Amino acid sequence: MFLLSSPCNQPLYNIYSLFLHLSNKTLSMGFFKSRRVVYRPVKDLNLASDSPEFYLHANVKAPRMTGILVKVFTWFLESPIFGPLLLYILKGSNLIHTLITNAELEESPLYVPAHHFEDHDEQEVKNLDSGLTPQEQVQLAIECLPSSSEKAQNETNRSFSRWTIMDYYKAYSSEAITPRVVAERFIAAVDESSKHPLPMGFFINYNPDDILRQADESTLRYKKGEPISVLDGVPIAVKDEIDCLPYPTTGGTKWLHKERPCIDDACCVKRLRLCGAMLVGKTNMHELGAGTSGINPHYGASRNPYDANKIAGGSSSGSAAVVSAGLCPVALGVDGGGSVRMPAALCGVVGLKPTFDRVPHSGVLPLNWTVGMVGILAGTVEDALITYAAISGEIPFKQPSSMLTKINLPLLSFSKSIRDIKLAKYGKWFNDCSDDVRLCCTQALSELQDYYGWKTIDVTLPDIEAMRLAHYLTIGSECSTWFDSFGKKHVAELGWDARVALSLYGAFSSKEYIKAQKLRNRQAKFHKRIFAEADVIVSPTTGVTAYSIQDDALKTGELDYVNGAALIRYSISGNFLGLPAVTVPVGYDTLGLPIGLQFIGRPWAEATLIHLAFAMQTICLSKYRKPKCFYDQLRKH
Amino acid sequence: MFLLSSPCNQPLYNIYSLFLHLSNKTLSMGFFKSRRVVYRPVKDLNLASDSPEFYLHANVKAPRMTGILVKVFTWFLESPIFGPLLLYILKGSNLIHTLITNAELEESPLYVPAHHFEDHDEQEVKNLDSGLTPQEQVQLAIECLPSSSEKAQNETNRSFSRWTIMDYYKAYSSEAITPRVVAERFIAAVDESSKHPLPMGFFINYNPDDILRQADESTLRYKKGEPISVLDGVPIAVKDEIDCLPYPTTGGTKWLHKERPCIDDACCVKRLRLCGAMLVGKTNMHELGAGTSGINPHYGASRNPYDANKIAGGSSSGSAAVVSAGLCPVALGVDGGGSVRMPAALCGVVGLKPTFDRVPHSGVLPLNWTVGMVGILAGTVEDALITYAAISGEIPFKQPSSMLTKINLPLLSFSKSIRDIKLAKYGKWFNDCSDDVRLCCTQALSELQDYYGWKTIDVTLPDIEAMRLAHYLTIGSECSTWFDSFGKKHVAELGWDARVALSLYGAFSSKEYIKAQKLRNRQAKFHKRIFAEADVIVSPTTGVTAYSIQDDALKTGELDYVNGAALIRYSISGNFLGLPAVTVPVGYDTLGLPIGLQFIGRPWAEATLIHLAFAMQTICLSKYRKPKCFYDQLRKH
Repeated sequence: MFLLSSPCNQPLYNIYSLFLHLSNKTLSMGFFKSRRVVYRPVKDLNLASDSPEFYLHANVKAPRMTGILVKVFTWFLESPIFGPLLLYILKGSNLIHTLITNAELEESPLYVPAHHFEDHDEQEVKNLDSGLTPQEQVQLAIECLPSSSEKAQNETNRSFSRWTIMDYYKAYSSEAITPRVVAERFIAAVDESSKHPLPMGFFINYNPDDILRQADESTLRYKKGEPISVLDGVPIAVKDEIDCLPYPTTGGTKWLHKERPCIDDACCVKRLRLCGAMLVGKTNMHELGAGTSGINPHYGASRNPYDANKIAGGSSSGSAAVVSAGLCPVALGVDGGGSVRMPAALCGVVGLKPTFDRVPHSGVLPLNWTVGMVGILAGTVEDALITYAAISGEIPFKQPSSMLTKINLPLLSFSKSIRDIKLAKYGKWFNDCSDDVRLCCTQALSELQDYYGWKTIDVTLPDIEAMRLAHYLTIGSECSTWFDSFGKKHVAELGWDARVALSLYGAFSSKEYIKAQKLRNRQAKFHKRIFAEADVIVSPTTGVTAYSIQDDALKTGELDYVNGAALIRYSISGNFLGLPAVTVPVGYDTLGLPIGLQFIGRPWAEATLIHLAFAMQTICLSKYRKPKCFYDQLRKH
Repeated sequence: MFLLSSPCNQPLYNIYSLFLHLSNKTLSMGFFKSRRVVYRPVKDLNLASDSPEFYLHANVKAPRMTGILVKVFTWFLESPIFGPLLLYILKGSNLIHTLITNAELEESPLYVPAHHFEDHDEQEVKNLDSGLTPQEQVQLAIECLPSSSEKAQNETNRSFSRWTIMDYYKAYSSEAITPRVVAERFIAAVDESSKHPLPMGFFINYNPDDILRQADESTLRYKKGEPISVLDGVPIAVKDEIDCLPYPTTGGTKWLHKERPCIDDACCVKRLRLCGAMLVGKTNMHELGAGTSGINPHYGASRNPYDANKIAGGSSSGSAAVVSAGLCPVALGVDGGGSVRMPAALCGVVGLKPTFDRVPHSGVLPLNWTVGMVGILAGTVEDALITYAAISGEIPFKQPSSMLTKINLPLLSFSKSIRDIKLAKYGKWFNDCSDDVRLCCTQALSELQDYYGWKTIDVTLPDIEAMRLAHYLTIGSECSTWFDSFGKKHVAELGWDARVALSLYGAFSSKEYIKAQKLRNRQAKFHKRIFAEADVIVSPTTGVTAYSIQDDALKTGELDYVNGAALIRYSISGNFLGLPAVTVPVGYDTLGLPIGLQFIGRPWAEATLIHLAFAMQTICLSKYRKPKCFYDQLRKH
């Protein structure tokens, strides 16, 4: 009988592995056997490079599932009798059971990764005063950019570049081009992209009339010589998880906007609008953010501009792809489990996820409450900085410029970077990725150290796999609770992979949820110890580069936990611990697909992260390549 | 068959009701039928007295269970096959399912009831500077007491009084008595109490040698004329949930101290020790705080000094009883669901639970993480104030005197109280108690208003019963997670009622836990709206007075959810929302058992609460009666 067949039987084994993404030979777990893990006190652990702590490879064995197989699996999971039984059996036999459910650990739960503000006395920063408007913060960010002469000197290194915010602003100011013309070309380009031999799936919604109206207003302002800020008329796209008028917020579904009408801009969008930005539409995303591929059964897959047969990554797939393809210098995403950084890395752009609570969450879909944060996808580190300055803070303008949460902006310079940076590297984790990623990231890091004279410290970060599972349990419980608030009536309107995710998500107990929060506190303590020694933690951004979109995945979605686990491997601490993190493109794999390197920083120390990202970008300038799908026409004068 | 018999069948019905303490006719729930509740947005609700919001009576039908019945029920619950099935059936048919599990509500979860500090510009307060020592804070509290002349004038009203901290201090200072003599008499009195025809069950541990050592040191300090503070040599007892050397911390169990040795004083105990207090032992408590009666199967029931056949209430049962019996002017308790206020009310003493996080939790058993707080049991409001000043803050001395969390002390006076106080009263809730409690509390409130010219505003507080269930689910999930950290090996060492509690506690899902936190946020919003109109919320402290201890309960413990629900009815917001609350004795029922009135205040506004409690106490001074079990000998000169 199906459910009672042996664990070696492939189909059942798949299902079994599926539930928690992995089974592990090292821990030699039996099918119904569960083991207790007793976590030792944090203070007793050695976090140096010679630590005996074991690195647990996420040895995922569940192969890819699409089509009829997904449907049958979903049917089983959702059935009132088989479902709970199947979940009970699956739960009895996986690593979450060992590493979380049966775990003994002394830490108290940390439910929300909010950090008391701490000023780290970062080098080469500009301290912003309290109560500034977004426009004022943007102006101060501009003053932090490298001087024009310095920039001109370095441009010779640059093999390829996208248009930046400053490029738009200068072209508008010199009347070389108008926002109206950019808007028209943008609309034509998006139109073209959707008729591409492979439709690129960039947007879920965009409204030409609304774009042209904004463009006309901006054009008029430039004509009068009164642009609001350097962002005036600059096209910025917004992930369809963030409220932005006049669009509905679908979250990648076909129904959510009917239940939850969008009645106002999200706070971050309001701040961009106050700066005069031209908001050009809502980008495609993995349905409900419940996956990392960006394959959406309702709106199509967002395709990778470097190779349209490959995924863009997710869940902020469209936002990464439009920046990569040159349609916008900047887009907003939301990062609940690497959802900004992963697609940024896969599409060869910069991805910045600020400290938890740095960017207000109001007007963002509450798909979870303790891990998700608005993030920035940008063509360059400079543009990420400008956008970061624009969206950081409340409306009215009190936070984070208040005394409690100051904002520092990094003074970027090609010639004079910050001194004595210490980068923490956990070798076993850093190297747990594909050969291409490992080689490329290792070399980039080595060049960075050599160029700036920075030091790498070898460290050990225990229980990374347990942290990933605890994060999965947390984001899953929160997402399914949110979904529950609409009753069960929309289940049938979801894609198949989202249905599987929600069934699995809803199967945890309150004790498991609280234990996961205890593990969150434990990891926070580990990271605090690391950050006492080092300024940042460095790692690849993803374990693999963009993989192929297969035709059978387009309609049902796909369950591909092997690639999923490899993609998400380096993202978790940013979300689960609320730490700021940034990814910078550092090279390409043998197929020409982009690779990103990640820096994870101390809470509130975004300035140092941006400094490091800029330094890394400076070193890589000459390597950057143009995507195959690129819309040059926007920038033509 | 047992499990399939009809819901009208009494034994099954008991079990069924038991699980969540109630079934309700009004909602006309079927046995397996569950309904969804859609909570309307908070802003749309009318919180005035004319609100159409329904008051849901907790119509608990589960009768008392002890002896063999508890054992059989426990066996069913803990068995690997029947247990989950029984829990599944019970869960399918109760109000938690309707009000929480299937609830639709828009609020985001509030996991921890921590409040940003807000200074409410309270009247007649002394603002303390930052960074003061406990001794300095105590000295400033003394300066807030009514002047001696004012006090002398009012003493004529007093029908009965316990010795206060100042009585001890003055007697020690004038050499009328020494701490050594008090200690000797204290030891003799405790000895006597345990040999009482009915052993009073005050302490789990007390060590005569340690008490005498402290007494001798204190005696020496007074001899030298160098007492540390007014607390020097004053006997203070500590609930056995709080670390206090040289005692183990049992939490009311027979095993916990072996797993978790006590290696240091808790922060609040350290602060008392720094003031010179004589720490006289660890008081009895309901096992693991998992009940409200204070009947402990291992250490005996704490008996009520007003009638030794009645419960003292719980879980801080011993702390309330020793203060009531005149053994100590003050004792520490912990209040996770009214556990300080309920026994205080039942034993006729003052109970103060400060704002969440006001008193550091380090060194207190982590039986839960988001509802429990150290509280104070005292014979008078003045003594509660002095102790509050002593224990509020961190070690080293930065919090709460830092800029972020200031501490205000009320300037108490008989003649000049604060003006224009508005008391919010929800009539249907206020009146949902026994006739004696209702009459007594109504009259006390009426006298208070008349005397001070304060105004009562009639309000509506929606969903109070849903809040109680959400709190139950929360404290239950947290307690069972904590218990889980020791594995299952100690289950058999628990009393039967604690075993039942832990089985039920562990049966919730992560979605239910998160929904409960959504309800927490919803209630926080309601209370914020009430506190925009009124300074405090007023209610009885408990719905019933102390009930009888029956012999069959002493060994197995008892399950008495009818009385339990009546006791806890008014306690929840203090814990679930982290609000400060205080109970003052206001009279006695027809059997002579004490009745308490409760004030619930704005976060951080303890000063106003203490003002109100003092005003209430002033009015009631002439009514106070001496307990039957009272140890006069300590105070004899």
